[in-house]
Amino acid sequence: MQATASHARVNSRKLDVVAIGDAIVDVIAPCDDEFLEEHGLRKGVMQLLDMPAAEALYEAMGAARQTSGGSAANTMAGIAALGGESAFVGQVADDQFGAVFTHDLRALGVRFDTPALSGGDPTGRCLILVTPDAQRTMNTCPGASHKLAVDALDEELVRSASITFLEGYLWGPEAPRETMLHAARIARDAGRTIAFTLSESLCIPGRRQGVMGMIDAGLVDILFGNEDEVVLLASSANLDEAVAGLSRKVSTLIVTQGAAGAIGLEGEARVAVPAVPVADVVDTTGAGDLFAAGFLAARCRGRRLEQCLETGTQAAAEVISQFGARPGADLGQRVAP
Amino acid sequence: MQATASHARVNSRKLDVVAIGDAIVDVIAPCDDEFLEEHGLRKGVMQLLDMPAAEALYEAMGAARQTSGGSAANTMAGIAALGGESAFVGQVADDQFGAVFTHDLRALGVRFDTPALSGGDPTGRCLILVTPDAQRTMNTCPGASHKLAVDALDEELVRSASITFLEGYLWGPEAPRETMLHAARIARDAGRTIAFTLSESLCIPGRRQGVMGMIDAGLVDILFGNEDEVVLLASSANLDEAVAGLSRKVSTLIVTQGAAGAIGLEGEARVAVPAVPVADVVDTTGAGDLFAAGFLAARCRGRRLEQCLETGTQAAAEVISQFGARPGADLGQRVAP
Repeated sequence: MQATASHARVNSRKLDVVAIGDAIVDVIAPCDDEFLEEHGLRKGVMQLLDMPAAEALYEAMGAARQTSGGSAANTMAGIAALGGESAFVGQVADDQFGAVFTHDLRALGVRFDTPALSGGDPTGRCLILVTPDAQRTMNTCPGASHKLAVDALDEELVRSASITFLEGYLWGPEAPRETMLHAARIARDAGRTIAFTLSESLCIPGRRQGVMGMIDAGLVDILFGNEDEVVLLASSANLDEAVAGLSRKVSTLIVTQGAAGAIGLEGEARVAVPAVPVADVVDTTGAGDLFAAGFLAARCRGRRLEQCLETGTQAAAEVISQFGARPGADLGQRVAP
Repeated sequence: MQATASHARVNSRKLDVVAIGDAIVDVIAPCDDEFLEEHGLRKGVMQLLDMPAAEALYEAMGAARQTSGGSAANTMAGIAALGGESAFVGQVADDQFGAVFTHDLRALGVRFDTPALSGGDPTGRCLILVTPDAQRTMNTCPGASHKLAVDALDEELVRSASITFLEGYLWGPEAPRETMLHAARIARDAGRTIAFTLSESLCIPGRRQGVMGMIDAGLVDILFGNEDEVVLLASSANLDEAVAGLSRKVSTLIVTQGAAGAIGLEGEARVAVPAVPVADVVDTTGAGDLFAAGFLAARCRGRRLEQCLETGTQAAAEVISQFGARPGADLGQRVAP
């Protein structure tokens, strides 16, 4: 009842941000470093698995907890928790994990109406292994999520949102990439802002040209990446060179630097903010997602660059203080965008 | 791989405890007291919901996390984490929640081979609402779990276990009740110990005669209950009268008293132990289940009554210090049965 009411309320308002991203349920278990070695997993990164490989890894993992995930979906959940109006476009299957994903986004007040896929791949899942050093190693079996096609896109939703936020993870498979490009063109025609997050350095080498093509076509206003990602994308020798090159191509360039904080470049302005100290880092899953949530929620309230960066680091600090990729709905009581 | 190997290892060993109980996935979300009132939910108890009612409540709940549950299954998970050899009999459906339940038990080393139900009800789930006072209010949609029939029972498994542990929640529906009675008779014929947990005071009035009939037939050696449950079962005016009456009928009577600890009666012996102080009670879900795990794990190591009660209170203290009904696999590093 409550979720429906809040859902209806969101429908009638102007949106701050609509995201296109993976619709994923996270399956999170602690593990030790030996487990990663035994299974040939590279700590801290994301890799894609097909269903048999995902099933084999799941069988080997310890008892887990399941929570809704997906990078851009986590960002939209964060924006809603911070009091913003957000919507999500992504594809689940018509199964129990799909129902969980749908419920959790709507319960947070995020508008989510992309039709579920029937009779095809199951809802995507991400097997997340958290080592004692709080690092997360992600193994994604994208399922229905990577079958997202242009006709699932509600074009009016994109036009109604101040910012369209696109997730780099979804750049690989053709259908979702076309959907994101289509959304970007609609947003551009409607005079909206387009944000893109690079998501994962391992993904970049094979997609560099395509992503740079999108940037060169003027379809990215705000670009989010970490140090590795921007260096790889710019094919630069170092971070300074990468930042100098990329900041000429986008209105706003945001580089996250983990424990070192984040930097933002906008025209001639360059602002650096430190990370918010966290006494007990439990699980770094969702740090980048919630940084983007804080940044975008503040941006939608008209805050200046430094404040947006600060809100980003505050939201990231909240999510790494707990297990799992989404903070509670009470995030807005602790962080004010 | 790991889970399979550990599973095979368990198969070849003598079992400490086999349990018959609900096979349930917990869907846990925080809520406030007003939410319970609005939805007419009585705090701290368990109620059964049919699928439409469960779906309506789920829609109204906040974003949740999913973890494997089921009272007796939690107890078996606890026994395995404490180094005991345990097995579980209960019925999931052939769906994603069923796969989660199965994986998590096996990953902890609990033997679980009951065939999944195909084409019928989905895997059971329990919508658990946790209020700020750490109380849990449970709303169970039992699904396939309550269709467990005698022919799903591996009789050899029951004969091989020192203790057969039966869950009172499963007493209501006819098929699982018959399955539990059948298992009790097999255990009795094989000279094994039979334990029964009363599970929930609200369930008792309608089942008093049946449960007392089982006790009077000599099919219960160890009886677990909390104060309300034993008073209702014995139809007594007060706890002392109930304890006096019931302790004459079973070899071992265990009464849990929440923050006041637990008492145990065995023949002429009566032992009371205090609860283990917990600085920050987060969620009381699983307290009784883990108490039984600690008690039974210690009993299987030949500990005397007082030690069994103490191990029970230690395991209960661990589970209420965290969110969710099962402690980590490292429970045995903190509690020694």
